[in-house]
Amino acid sequence: MSTAKRGSAVTMHEVAARAGVSIKTVSNVVNGYQYIRPATKERVEAAIADLGYQVNLSARNLRRGRTGIIGLAVPELSLPYFAELADSVIRAADARGLTVLIEQTGSVRERELDVLSGQRRHLTDGLIFSPLELGPQDAEALHVDYPMVLLGERIFGGPADHVTMNNVEAARAATQHLLDLGRRRIAVIGAHEGETVGSAALRVQGYRQALEEAGLPVDPALIGEAGLWHRATGAETMERLLDSGVEIDAVFGLNDALALGALHVLHARRIDVPGQIAVIGFDDIEETAYSSPTLTTVAPGREQIATTAVDLLLARIEELEPGKPFAQVITDFEIVGRESTLGEQAPAV
Amino acid sequence: MSTAKRGSAVTMHEVAARAGVSIKTVSNVVNGYQYIRPATKERVEAAIADLGYQVNLSARNLRRGRTGIIGLAVPELSLPYFAELADSVIRAADARGLTVLIEQTGSVRERELDVLSGQRRHLTDGLIFSPLELGPQDAEALHVDYPMVLLGERIFGGPADHVTMNNVEAARAATQHLLDLGRRRIAVIGAHEGETVGSAALRVQGYRQALEEAGLPVDPALIGEAGLWHRATGAETMERLLDSGVEIDAVFGLNDALALGALHVLHARRIDVPGQIAVIGFDDIEETAYSSPTLTTVAPGREQIATTAVDLLLARIEELEPGKPFAQVITDFEIVGRESTLGEQAPAV
Repeated sequence: MSTAKRGSAVTMHEVAARAGVSIKTVSNVVNGYQYIRPATKERVEAAIADLGYQVNLSARNLRRGRTGIIGLAVPELSLPYFAELADSVIRAADARGLTVLIEQTGSVRERELDVLSGQRRHLTDGLIFSPLELGPQDAEALHVDYPMVLLGERIFGGPADHVTMNNVEAARAATQHLLDLGRRRIAVIGAHEGETVGSAALRVQGYRQALEEAGLPVDPALIGEAGLWHRATGAETMERLLDSGVEIDAVFGLNDALALGALHVLHARRIDVPGQIAVIGFDDIEETAYSSPTLTTVAPGREQIATTAVDLLLARIEELEPGKPFAQVITDFEIVGRESTLGEQAPAV
Repeated sequence: MSTAKRGSAVTMHEVAARAGVSIKTVSNVVNGYQYIRPATKERVEAAIADLGYQVNLSARNLRRGRTGIIGLAVPELSLPYFAELADSVIRAADARGLTVLIEQTGSVRERELDVLSGQRRHLTDGLIFSPLELGPQDAEALHVDYPMVLLGERIFGGPADHVTMNNVEAARAATQHLLDLGRRRIAVIGAHEGETVGSAALRVQGYRQALEEAGLPVDPALIGEAGLWHRATGAETMERLLDSGVEIDAVFGLNDALALGALHVLHARRIDVPGQIAVIGFDDIEETAYSSPTLTTVAPGREQIATTAVDLLLARIEELEPGKPFAQVITDFEIVGRESTLGEQAPAV
């Protein structure tokens, strides 16, 4: 039975102490240096095995070459948008000879900060990072000494290349789609109260703009909060809005999972979609083309986001243009009209 | 502009030639050996940068310690089952201080073989592998010199720990669920003609057993082929079965994506589910609790699969019980009854 500790708490110093050799000798063994007496080498290897010492691939070493691995940090793979994005990034990376190390942050700020500073960075040539929780107070943490591309709005004027979509414009277009169909009481699902940056705030802003341009009031009773953007929270918020008795003829789910949760509740309550309430989502995950009814949504150009991010990162890794200013690439979006707003007239998938 | 080649084709020999030093000197620089003249070191580092040399973390070096990273190879993250499984594996690994390197094989045999022998293995302490395409002829490739846990049926008597579910039993129970509801013309979607091992063959076998035990004939016209187990192929197969004119009162999708594709077609053709045709899937992906109607399915114990696989792998990595015979762990399953078979009587989600 090994006395190994879990994690990376064991230091080279402890290995040296146990083996009765200098740290330099441990380093030589770990680095595969040839001129070490076999007996010494064996003692060090036994100490490493006993203690469960983890090789510390120091940044110093790896900066001299490349591992061919890039990191991708996303909130959760169980959210289809991020699973499909990861799929696209892996394919784009693969086509360029790169492997992808995926990390999940679970939308927790501390874990997002860990991603930036964590030991895993020593194993990767660069990072594609989709932060959800970092705020302006974390801008300093984004000053990193490795190539990084951020996905999402450039909300901190951050020191990195960004790939994003125009959330305000896209949300305005989604709302306009509902207005064009004659809807006037459009509920929102997924707002984050008090948030001023981030996707929720920007999408609500686009919604407000569309209503204001149409000369319609913004009714706070129609704006449904939902912290997490999951199917379950979408369903809960839809229930709450319906139970409040507010008049609703359309729903804008700020992502597809929220909209699909809302559809589920409308179906359960026998409310006709789109007859009584039209529904639009955001992301164009594959599921939206198969739900009943199929879901109208905003396609954010996932393939374009993935290939652009990988290409930007690779250019930084290879230092193709040293000192090039950080870029912000804004990808295209389009409204994909389906049954949940168009009903029978919707084109077949 | 760097002359870097993409990929890892650059050898240490080329770096040495360009820098005008010996291979041993390049090795010393890469490994961070201290006693190198600064001018020499600079020449080598310049050559590494110019050529885009990738550090080759040889298995020899890493076998002496651990990286804290495990590999997870799955067919596709865009299939929700594998995205949700990856999520569970990442959480289980994270709780044990491990990071997960995800690789996609795209269900291509050559890529599955690459996973086993690829250079990425040098970066990981072990591998959790869900092969779909490897057959008995590939059994030799499974004899690897690193810790590995296989997900899926132990179809080759393979030399590794296995975590699997009883596909035959689970498919028999799914079919029995439909028989208990009085269905007699049960179509299958997702069969693989000519296959004798693998999930498709085993699930069709369970279907046949249930019919035979009920004294019902197996009608080949009811067995729908679908190579890939996607929503799109499920929809196509459902269309084909309906167009064939064969009498159908239930559908067993061999995974949820296939069943959801079938539901989509039944909805489009205004066929009542479960009134006219009951539908059951397999996997219990989250989407099945939100589709309209909600989808009855087989829950394969995803969390149990993930935690068991990580624990088995960790035991091998830490050599807790050296020489322990390879285990096959069979996880529990259950039928989750929802609207697509039970209709109005289905319990709320």
